[in-house]
Amino acid sequence: MIQSVERAALILKVLGSGTPRLGVTEIAERVGLAKPTVHGLLRTLAACELVVQDSDTGKYALGPAVLQLGNAYLEGSELRARSLLWADSLAQRVNEAVWIGTLSGSRVIVLHHVFRPDDVVQILEVGAAIPWHACALGHAIAAHDPRGGELLSDDLAPLTGLTRTGRDDLERALAEVRRRGYAVEDQEAALGDAGVAAPVFSRDGSVAGAVAVVGPVERVLDPARREDIALAVRETARALSRDLGAPRSAVPGGPAA
Amino acid sequence: MIQSVERAALILKVLGSGTPRLGVTEIAERVGLAKPTVHGLLRTLAACELVVQDSDTGKYALGPAVLQLGNAYLEGSELRARSLLWADSLAQRVNEAVWIGTLSGSRVIVLHHVFRPDDVVQILEVGAAIPWHACALGHAIAAHDPRGGELLSDDLAPLTGLTRTGRDDLERALAEVRRRGYAVEDQEAALGDAGVAAPVFSRDGSVAGAVAVVGPVERVLDPARREDIALAVRETARALSRDLGAPRSAVPGGPAA
Repeated sequence: MIQSVERAALILKVLGSGTPRLGVTEIAERVGLAKPTVHGLLRTLAACELVVQDSDTGKYALGPAVLQLGNAYLEGSELRARSLLWADSLAQRVNEAVWIGTLSGSRVIVLHHVFRPDDVVQILEVGAAIPWHACALGHAIAAHDPRGGELLSDDLAPLTGLTRTGRDDLERALAEVRRRGYAVEDQEAALGDAGVAAPVFSRDGSVAGAVAVVGPVERVLDPARREDIALAVRETARALSRDLGAPRSAVPGGPAA
Repeated sequence: MIQSVERAALILKVLGSGTPRLGVTEIAERVGLAKPTVHGLLRTLAACELVVQDSDTGKYALGPAVLQLGNAYLEGSELRARSLLWADSLAQRVNEAVWIGTLSGSRVIVLHHVFRPDDVVQILEVGAAIPWHACALGHAIAAHDPRGGELLSDDLAPLTGLTRTGRDDLERALAEVRRRGYAVEDQEAALGDAGVAAPVFSRDGSVAGAVAVVGPVERVLDPARREDIALAVRETARALSRDLGAPRSAVPGGPAA
């Protein structure tokens, strides 16, 4: 591990964590390094255009080059490319919004977002990062991730009064995902919102991400529609897994098989 | 400048430049460093989740963490936040697609994209990076950028048979932008497409980016509409500049003032 690169990555992470503009002193505090060290790293990151310094305030922010990297990541993502048609067709089938996500550290990153077909005022969530334990996508992935235990031992903060954060609770939830093939989240990331997700597997049989139907809890978890939605999500996840080259044996079966 | 951070940034750039998956040898060739050096940097970047290694092929690609950074950049961008309503209203006014962009190195990064109101099949270009000399956004910005000369001395490749790449040609184009307040690009980035852009200024009077109307050349540069489009673009750029706090003196006037 090259220490200065690790530290630079940490600075980028801090600048990407909610407060868009920070001074050298604030950054040094957050990363736990001496101010001159942070200053040197920031100057290098600025020369590489990964950060920019505001001429007015002297504060630092992420630079437009990171947006370009993010876009290049999306364009190169096989999961995203393969999911475009499947996600569209799932959104049409259940008339709800669809997200495709993958795990990065302890967060799920939304790679693709199909708006609910009947709704026009929506915010594109591509690039959003959601703590894995608070969303259906995260549960669907974590249930099959080799780092499962490590994920469970993270310091998991509640996002709403309904977020499950206890290790036992979450272990039960993940076992349930493995048993029935899908994950359900009921207002654990935001009050009023819910999600149903199923894991997507890649060529080597490992979990590549997940596909979710997300939306208002009264729609997505409506008892009259819930089974249909879960079935549609699972069928989509299985089709997408096969499309990614996942071996049949890696794709959970069940009634939809 | 911290050499290992510079090198790591260069590796990210290479991975973000069109070939999504590269082996260590290929990366080492492209960045001009020894393979063991590149390997060490890649391992560190992978530990920070800025890159991922494919378990099948051993090749490296950008990691989902860069998407999260790109999203954080967008959310923190004042230019983007302030431009949302102005861009919508411009798109409605001229019935064409609108882009907001900013300069990163020698490329314009698209920060916001409003689809043409009457057209449904469009690709979201947010995050796209376009060589500055081949687009109206780039000309509008470069005409007011203190690095103007430096930008002109870059090695400028043609994207189409119509791309202006000669220093004299471009200097004339930028002088014209400063004179009339807007830039015109006629199929210089892609055959069939054109753009009209005007610069946007920030609080300190420096150029922050630009706003453009983009679309099929026969619509955007239609002699019957061209003047109206240029006026609408300039008025939008001026309103957005004022919204960003630009001093009145920094915002070019003209007939629309």
